[in-house]
Amino acid sequence: MIFLFTDFGASDIYVGQVKAVLQEHAPKVPVIDLLHDAPRFNVTAGAHLLAALAARLLRESVTLAVVDPGVGGSREPVAVRADGRWFVGPDNGLISVAAARAKQIEVFSIGWRPRYLSASFHGRDLFAPVSAMLAQGDRQTPKLKKAALAVGFGPDDLSEVIYVDHFENLVTGLRASGLPRKSRLVVKGRWIVHARVFSDVPAGEAFWYENSIGLAEIAANSDHAAAKLGLRIGDAVGVGE
Amino acid sequence: MIFLFTDFGASDIYVGQVKAVLQEHAPKVPVIDLLHDAPRFNVTAGAHLLAALAARLLRESVTLAVVDPGVGGSREPVAVRADGRWFVGPDNGLISVAAARAKQIEVFSIGWRPRYLSASFHGRDLFAPVSAMLAQGDRQTPKLKKAALAVGFGPDDLSEVIYVDHFENLVTGLRASGLPRKSRLVVKGRWIVHARVFSDVPAGEAFWYENSIGLAEIAANSDHAAAKLGLRIGDAVGVGE
Amino acid sequence: MIFLFTDFGASDIYVGQVKAVLQEHAPKVPVIDLLHDAPRFNVTAGAHLLAALAARLLRESVTLAVVDPGVGGSREPVAVRADGRWFVGPDNGLISVAAARAKQIEVFSIGWRPRYLSASFHGRDLFAPVSAMLAQGDRQTPKLKKAALAVGFGPDDLSEVIYVDHFENLVTGLRASGLPRKSRLVVKGRWIVHARVFSDVPAGEAFWYENSIGLAEIAANSDHAAAKLGLRIGDAVGVGE
Repeated sequence: MIFLFTDFGASDIYVGQVKAVLQEHAPKVPVIDLLHDAPRFNVTAGAHLLAALAARLLRESVTLAVVDPGVGGSREPVAVRADGRWFVGPDNGLISVAAARAKQIEVFSIGWRPRYLSASFHGRDLFAPVSAMLAQGDRQTPKLKKAALAVGFGPDDLSEVIYVDHFENLVTGLRASGLPRKSRLVVKGRWIVHARVFSDVPAGEAFWYENSIGLAEIAANSDHAAAKLGLRIGDAVGVGE
Repeated sequence: MIFLFTDFGASDIYVGQVKAVLQEHAPKVPVIDLLHDAPRFNVTAGAHLLAALAARLLRESVTLAVVDPGVGGSREPVAVRADGRWFVGPDNGLISVAAARAKQIEVFSIGWRPRYLSASFHGRDLFAPVSAMLAQGDRQTPKLKKAALAVGFGPDDLSEVIYVDHFENLVTGLRASGLPRKSRLVVKGRWIVHARVFSDVPAGEAFWYENSIGLAEIAANSDHAAAKLGLRIGDAVGVGE
Repeated sequence: MIFLFTDFGASDIYVGQVKAVLQEHAPKVPVIDLLHDAPRFNVTAGAHLLAALAARLLRESVTLAVVDPGVGGSREPVAVRADGRWFVGPDNGLISVAAARAKQIEVFSIGWRPRYLSASFHGRDLFAPVSAMLAQGDRQTPKLKKAALAVGFGPDDLSEVIYVDHFENLVTGLRASGLPRKSRLVVKGRWIVHARVFSDVPAGEAFWYENSIGLAEIAANSDHAAAKLGLRIGDAVGVGE
C-alpha cells in the first residue's frame, strides 16, 4: 500500500499527476490519500502530524511524504525504513519525528534520478517513482545508500497546535499517553480541562481529549474551537494541573 | 462496492484512515467517496440527502454513512438492508429516511466490537470493518441481530434547504416527482419559478429545477444562488402555485 | 486509465456519482482525478489548463473533460482522439486547445444516448458511460461518427491567468518553452522577472518560472502571489524584456 502525505492540496492539480505516475509504475499497488493539506511551509508541525498518523499505518507500506518549501534547493531526497514502514521524501525534517520514534530504523540516500526532473515538483518526478519501486520490493533501481538524516527534530512532543481539522478542532503535538487525565492544557492564558468525548461536555464548552491518533486535541462540543479560542497552527500549548 | 457518506471532510485526515482499514479488510472491493462534507451537526438534512443519493446507487453495495455528533455517547451502531443495499452507521436517524422509503427493509444491531475502539472515530474503528465484512458477504462476524431503528425521521419530504453545493446551488429536501412544474417555491418571502435547465433562464435569474438526484434545487444561471438569495442549510422552503 | 477533469468540485456530491458509473461500466480501469475545480464558467481558461496537463498524460488514456455551463442546451457531445489520447466532453471549446496542438487528431460526434439523461448532469449520464466504453476499446457502442469541432480556440497561448492553485500561485496560459528566461511578465503594470525555483529569490518576492506542466507561473517565495499581486483568473498577462 502507498500512502500520500503532502501539502499539494486535495483539490488541486498536483495529486492526480502523482497518482498517474504511481499507477504507471506500480499498477497493482493501492494508493491512499492520508492528507494533502499538511500545514504549509511548516515542516515541524507536519513532521509531528505524520509521526502520529504513521504509527497506525500498516507495516509493509510506503508513505510518500512531501512538504517541501525548499524544493529545487539543496536538500537531498531520502528513503527511511522505520519499524518496517518506508517513508520517501525530502531530508528536511518531515520524516524525522516518525524516524526518531521508531525502534528499528534505516536511512538511505536515493541515488536514482529521473530523465526529466522538474524544478518544482519532485513529488511527481522523483518521490513517486521511488515510492512505486519500494512498494514493489525493488531496492536496486532507486540506488539506495546507507546514510543519516541531515535534519532531525527528535522524538519529543511538540507543545504547539500542529493541525486544525475541518471541524476546527485543534490537534496538538502532545501525545495523550503522556498526559494524566487531570492535566489541564493552557492556551493563550486559558485553561482547558479533559473530557472523554464531545457528548460529555455542554454544547459550546472547550475541552481536551485523546484523539483518534493518540494526540491531545482541543475541541468544543458542537462548536468551532479554533475560532472560539482564537488559535491556529504554531500557537503554544502549555500543560498544567 | 463500498460508498462513503460522511462529514469527515474531503481534505482532512479522517477519510484516508477509513480507507486504509477498508483496504486491509476488503482489498478487492472498490471504494467510492459519495460525500465527505455532509451537513455538519445536521443529521436530518444529511438523512434526506443520503436517501436521494442512495436511490441511484447500485444494489448489492454497502454505504458507510456517518454523521455522528453523538459519537462516544449512547447511540448504537446499526446495519440496515434496504432494497438490497446495505447501510452501516450510527442509529441517530441518518439512515432512517432511506430505510423508510425502501420497499424491503431489514434492520440489525451490530454485536461485533473491535479490539481497540477510539472514543471519537467509530467510522474507522467499527463502521469500516463492519462495512468491509458485509461487502464481502460475511454476515456472521459482525454479529447482526434483528432490531428496529431507535431514531426515525420517516419517508416524507423535508421542506428545507438540505445542502448547498460548490456552485452555491440550493438542494431542497423536496422530491421533484411530487411537484407539478407550475409550482413555485417560496424562500424568505420570495417566489421561485420552474425552469428545465440553466440555459433556459437569463444569466443571474433564480429558478428551481429537478436536479440530477431527483430533488427540487434552487439555482441561478451563472450566479451563486445561496449568496444571491441569502439562504443556507436549514432554511424553510414553501411550495405554492 | 481514465482521467477526470471537471468543475464538479472535489468535495461535492458529483464526482462520486461519476465514479460509480465508471466502476459499473469499466470495473478494471483505474480512474484518476486530475482536477475537479477547473475554473468555473470559464471554458477558455479550462481549455488551456487541460491542454497543458494532457500533454503529460499517458497515451492510450481517456480523459472525461467537463466544464459545461451550457449543459442541457444545444452544444453536442464529442469524443476527440488527439495523439493517441481520448477526450470525451461537450463541444464547447474545452477540448479544442489540446486538439489543436496535437499532431494527429480525429474528432467524432457521439450518437449513443443513455436511457435516462438528466438535464443537468451529462457528466454522469452520458460522458462517463462513453468514457468507460472507449477505455475498454469499444468504439461501436458509443456510435462515433467522424465530425469536426463546432467550437475551437486554436493552438495559441492565452495571455491570461488561467488558474490559481491552493498556494495562490498564478498559472498563466503562456507556455514557458516560448519565453526566453530574460523575459519579464507584466501584470497590472507590474514587471515580474524570472527565477528558476522558489529558493532562488528572497522570501516574499514575486517571480515567474516554468512550472511542472510547462507553463509560465507567477509565484512569491513563501507568500501568496494572488493576494499579494491582486490577481485572479482572467487577468491579462503581458510579456516584455
